[in-house]
Amino acid sequence: MTISFEIEACDGEARVGRVRTARGTFATPAFMPVGTVGTVKAMTPEALARCGAEIILANTYHLMLRPGAERIACLGGVGKMMAWPGPVLTDSGGFQILSLSKLRKLSEKGVTFQSHIDGTQHVLTPERSVQIQRDLHSTITMALDECTSFPASKDVAAKSMELSMRWASRSKAAFSPKSGFGIFGIVQGGMHQELRSESVGSLVESDFDGYAIGGLAVGEGSELMYEIMGYTAKKLPIDKPRYLMGVGRPADLVEAVTSGCDMFDCVLPTRSGRTGQAFVRNAVVNIRNHRHKDDPRPLDASCRCPTCLGYSRAYLHHLVQTKEILGAILITWHNLHYYQELMKEMRAAIRSGELTQFSSNFLVDEMKGDIEPL
Amino acid sequence: MTISFEIEACDGEARVGRVRTARGTFATPAFMPVGTVGTVKAMTPEALARCGAEIILANTYHLMLRPGAERIACLGGVGKMMAWPGPVLTDSGGFQILSLSKLRKLSEKGVTFQSHIDGTQHVLTPERSVQIQRDLHSTITMALDECTSFPASKDVAAKSMELSMRWASRSKAAFSPKSGFGIFGIVQGGMHQELRSESVGSLVESDFDGYAIGGLAVGEGSELMYEIMGYTAKKLPIDKPRYLMGVGRPADLVEAVTSGCDMFDCVLPTRSGRTGQAFVRNAVVNIRNHRHKDDPRPLDASCRCPTCLGYSRAYLHHLVQTKEILGAILITWHNLHYYQELMKEMRAAIRSGELTQFSSNFLVDEMKGDIEPL
Repeated sequence: MTISFEIEACDGEARVGRVRTARGTFATPAFMPVGTVGTVKAMTPEALARCGAEIILANTYHLMLRPGAERIACLGGVGKMMAWPGPVLTDSGGFQILSLSKLRKLSEKGVTFQSHIDGTQHVLTPERSVQIQRDLHSTITMALDECTSFPASKDVAAKSMELSMRWASRSKAAFSPKSGFGIFGIVQGGMHQELRSESVGSLVESDFDGYAIGGLAVGEGSELMYEIMGYTAKKLPIDKPRYLMGVGRPADLVEAVTSGCDMFDCVLPTRSGRTGQAFVRNAVVNIRNHRHKDDPRPLDASCRCPTCLGYSRAYLHHLVQTKEILGAILITWHNLHYYQELMKEMRAAIRSGELTQFSSNFLVDEMKGDIEPL
Repeated sequence: MTISFEIEACDGEARVGRVRTARGTFATPAFMPVGTVGTVKAMTPEALARCGAEIILANTYHLMLRPGAERIACLGGVGKMMAWPGPVLTDSGGFQILSLSKLRKLSEKGVTFQSHIDGTQHVLTPERSVQIQRDLHSTITMALDECTSFPASKDVAAKSMELSMRWASRSKAAFSPKSGFGIFGIVQGGMHQELRSESVGSLVESDFDGYAIGGLAVGEGSELMYEIMGYTAKKLPIDKPRYLMGVGRPADLVEAVTSGCDMFDCVLPTRSGRTGQAFVRNAVVNIRNHRHKDDPRPLDASCRCPTCLGYSRAYLHHLVQTKEILGAILITWHNLHYYQELMKEMRAAIRSGELTQFSSNFLVDEMKGDIEPL
């Protein structure tokens, strides 16, 4: 057996589940903090666990370049290296090659690219990506795909999707099954329902351990994203986890969970933590704003994270203004806590059959705006 | 009563003591991590306490400029603002004015200077410095002094010391005694024993709650520093804490404790933590060095800090190479733990009358160098 997925409760399309892996279990819907180069920026693994995170994501592209897959293998894998005891999902490297590297050349075989760090040339094939993720001791491996750019005509999107599907089969074939480890395929097809449907059909033939929805949040806007996401999620097998890649804002997560998605990752809570943006239920607070400079209140009086329990907005403002590392630590901690609490609340709402109510309350709350200045 | 100092054990000139303050007690010899702008860089207060720190230092100069003394007063003082529950010693601001600010003008009255941040003009008199430290809710206030530059002729050093002594009396007069809060005077006099002796005599007349030795570690070299430090410490009242300011390297602390100094502060462990320099008993490890890139061993196999318990040199090397915040967090944590353990070991050695043995073992160990590469 690879990894197992057990659904514990449903509410409409949404479900609460539990994924069991060789490195422990995690509840779904799950938000995976992003540990780009083998660290969730500004967080210790202990702090991550205290936020409620049970699984994290690491980026194959970054890790293959620094410190290198073979080096990580010698250190016992990415989880052991970074002292994170839980499961780690790694992406395939494809997305970052497209967004970060120079002089990319795509062929049937794979992608040739130059490192954005030192210009060295690398080749990533589906087989090589799976091999690297094996070296990383990834708990959940992602198949190599091409993230179709937006906008893309049906013809272009079809060709791109078909290549991704051939790469998906090759990825699955290259993956050595191991108890408690799994591999997910990635649905592509741009904004075209027919192609998305075709992509799902093709992936299901390979019988992956879970299915990701890729190629969204690429500039198409919320409405179209929700439409394609909802359509695709419904087509996917009910008994496997569904992972919406790279999404997103809190409201996106609420919509995606309602549509039946189970797993998420996004740099938003961590990146925002380093630029002074804090998520609270009623707003996104820009702590750099001068209105906070004398405010003795916490970011969110109802939040139980260490940042809100211990520190004022005035102090956070000061830390961010003086570029102190502690500012990044505390706001990242709050943001990840906020995301994990949101997932927890949604799991509870699904169990009690109240997700629709939760979702509409959430959207109303989000419109309220931050507390009034003192 | 202001603050109290109780000596629990002696070994030669060295002593183990306990200082009681309004914000809790601390054992001496004590090392105070430096919380420059109201945060010990890269550390949470919780992590600081876990290192064994019982008192921290904050810089009046930095805090008066950002976020400002009145603002901190409104937030309940620097300790409350930064969620550090223990005592906080603040310096007088004099040292940083000399090292950081522009267009300084010294007069009998005080110092006029321009902020290094925005060029605004400020005046710091002994009275204003004490007032600011009161606004900061400083547990231990330092009298304003002029740190005599090095080298200084006896005439120059005498004039500078005499000014500092007049400022010390004015500082003491401006200080409002409050139960559990105290004020320390600072001995100056350059490298001239006679002046140091005179300075001690002058300060003792004002009956401070503790005495600091200032104007050392300014480029005079270890030998001269140890001589002046040892000479001055012996002249100071036996029943008050002695604080050696801005020192220093681990070997300096061993020598200073042996000479009868009780309190220390230095940016070395924290600053080094942000540049990849780690203190271990046998060496200072430069983790950037390529020799560590595949080394699965911890910084120090005998160390019980979270960094050494959880992480390899290879991973720390990777974090520092990729400029990840976690690298600064983990190495700073290790360094502060190292410093606090050193103080703890010295307190134990004094109690068992073995400080001389400890000191000679320490110096031998320091010469051994880092573990061999694998």
